Amino acid sequence: MKQPLAVGIDIGGTNTTFGIVDRRGNLLCDGHISTRDHQEVSFFIQALHEQLAPLIHKVSLEGGEVKGIGVGVPNGNYFKGTIEFAPNLPWRGVVPLASLIQEAFTLPTVLTNDANAAAIGEMTYGAARGMKDFIMITLGTGLGSGIVVNGQLVYGHDGFAGELGHVIVFPEGRLCGCGRKGCLETYVSATGIVRTMHELLQSRHVHSLLRDVKPEEITSKTIRDAALQGDALAIEAFEFTGKILGQQLANFVAFSSPEAIILFGGLTKAGDLIFRPTIHAMEENLLQIYKNKIKVLPSELKENDAAILGASALVWEIKS
Amino acid sequence: MKQPLAVGIDIGGTNTTFGIVDRRGNLLCDGHISTRDHQEVSFFIQALHEQLAPLIHKVSLEGGEVKGIGVGVPNGNYFKGTIEFAPNLPWRGVVPLASLIQEAFTLPTVLTNDANAAAIGEMTYGAARGMKDFIMITLGTGLGSGIVVNGQLVYGHDGFAGELGHVIVFPEGRLCGCGRKGCLETYVSATGIVRTMHELLQSRHVHSLLRDVKPEEITSKTIRDAALQGDALAIEAFEFTGKILGQQLANFVAFSSPEAIILFGGLTKAGDLIFRPTIHAMEENLLQIYKNKIKVLPSELKENDAAILGASALVWEIKS
Repeated sequence: MKQPLAVGIDIGGTNTTFGIVDRRGNLLCDGHISTRDHQEVSFFIQALHEQLAPLIHKVSLEGGEVKGIGVGVPNGNYFKGTIEFAPNLPWRGVVPLASLIQEAFTLPTVLTNDANAAAIGEMTYGAARGMKDFIMITLGTGLGSGIVVNGQLVYGHDGFAGELGHVIVFPEGRLCGCGRKGCLETYVSATGIVRTMHELLQSRHVHSLLRDVKPEEITSKTIRDAALQGDALAIEAFEFTGKILGQQLANFVAFSSPEAIILFGGLTKAGDLIFRPTIHAMEENLLQIYKNKIKVLPSELKENDAAILGASALVWEIKS
Repeated sequence: MKQPLAVGIDIGGTNTTFGIVDRRGNLLCDGHISTRDHQEVSFFIQALHEQLAPLIHKVSLEGGEVKGIGVGVPNGNYFKGTIEFAPNLPWRGVVPLASLIQEAFTLPTVLTNDANAAAIGEMTYGAARGMKDFIMITLGTGLGSGIVVNGQLVYGHDGFAGELGHVIVFPEGRLCGCGRKGCLETYVSATGIVRTMHELLQSRHVHSLLRDVKPEEITSKTIRDAALQGDALAIEAFEFTGKILGQQLANFVAFSSPEAIILFGGLTKAGDLIFRPTIHAMEENLLQIYKNKIKVLPSELKENDAAILGASALVWEIKS
């Protein structure tokens, strides 16, 4: 019998990575193309086919059988297989991406947003194995989320559930890329902590290692490095970020009462710097019945592979 | 063949009502006992049995067959069949109510919190018939909620999901009965609007019909009556309440992307006074992808029967 395999494709604003994965989550081979250089979606599909089709051919010669293609993409709609009004992708309006890929490869193709794909990946191969109720929070440029209830991803009525990055935490707060003010992701994300750091550097007249860094070169990584060297202002930036995240996690718990919340993405590399204030603020704000019950865990997926693994895991859910 | 029937029991802090319901949601007979007068749960079960057993006997003589008992109760846990630390009930700690009732009546008994029961009632007999994704908000003394995703009630990992009344909307806001500050229900509930009205009467030096009412006699009903007579301050109290509710509904939508939000309870009798500002604030705060998609509907269950109907509908979900 041939070994069942799945293709995972992760489409980001800059690059698209893809790979072929077995049932256990082993990445057999992978590759990447530019997203941004393909302003026309048809050219993108063509470039993807040129790079990916030979990999599919190769694994089938080696005894594998690719069962389908899973795609994780910002603003992806699971029900319709479309990308809709994605601000960070080159393609405007509504793009029927799943059917375009399905036609190009003649393989069943399923698509969801990137954070939902990460949640499925975590449930299939990572820290949420065996869990039926958890929330996945991805902390990248923005804040994405995938919510699992009763063992199923919550898609909602229209396929757009789980936009927790756009919960409004301060009605007159920071301007968000979505056009509104005070969204969670303007505070809690790689870009959010950079904004916080700039505010702290301006408002506090104390020493900081980051005063020696050009403002435009301050990133979540330079803030982390400074914090790890004991920089008080950088540590405060993490504490502020974790406090806001923890307060909101307490609200999310009141919604779906999950077994765990799993944090994923660049910001989580800061470890205790971000986990400690997050858990502290969450516990402080939890309703009594939830206290000391909710695990806050780091993802167990390797960051570089996670998006591909998550997208590929969608394939195992296709009902044949 | 005998007609399948279900018992619904709604336990409130003051009174307990019960009734026998057919598959179509017709209430065949009903009754009530005091909750508050039975400080011992065993006496409560005894009183319940004395009143309810004859009704069950009567319908069975008339060709019906009671399939089970459903109970809606504050702080009810569906998984464990328990009431846990209910501040408004006479029984302390953890009470295994479902098994006590099951033993007394030798009928399968299932229990959930009152707002979850209302959600199931609405899905079975009311405004949410045919919907698979909706949120039920009950506006009584507090704010309760029942969340339905993919046709299933969200119970969460421990059976306590859907405590949206305890989402914190102002971190340093009004003191809540739960011991924390700024919970949604301290603003949006029958008691919340009374607090708002008192604040408005104190801070604004304008005429109001409610200045002629003794402070302790101001209720959500007197505020509604004044608003219906055009009292500007009473109208403002509804607008403030609706604004906070609508802002939070926008956040809830980002969680589960429901088809509809259904409002139930005394406050909703104010009709447009509460619905208009709620919908306005929700739409103003919704992420673009959700705008003009989410219905906000009044419950279609008769208020006096709804809790019994909802509790009885639990019985149809028992897997036999």
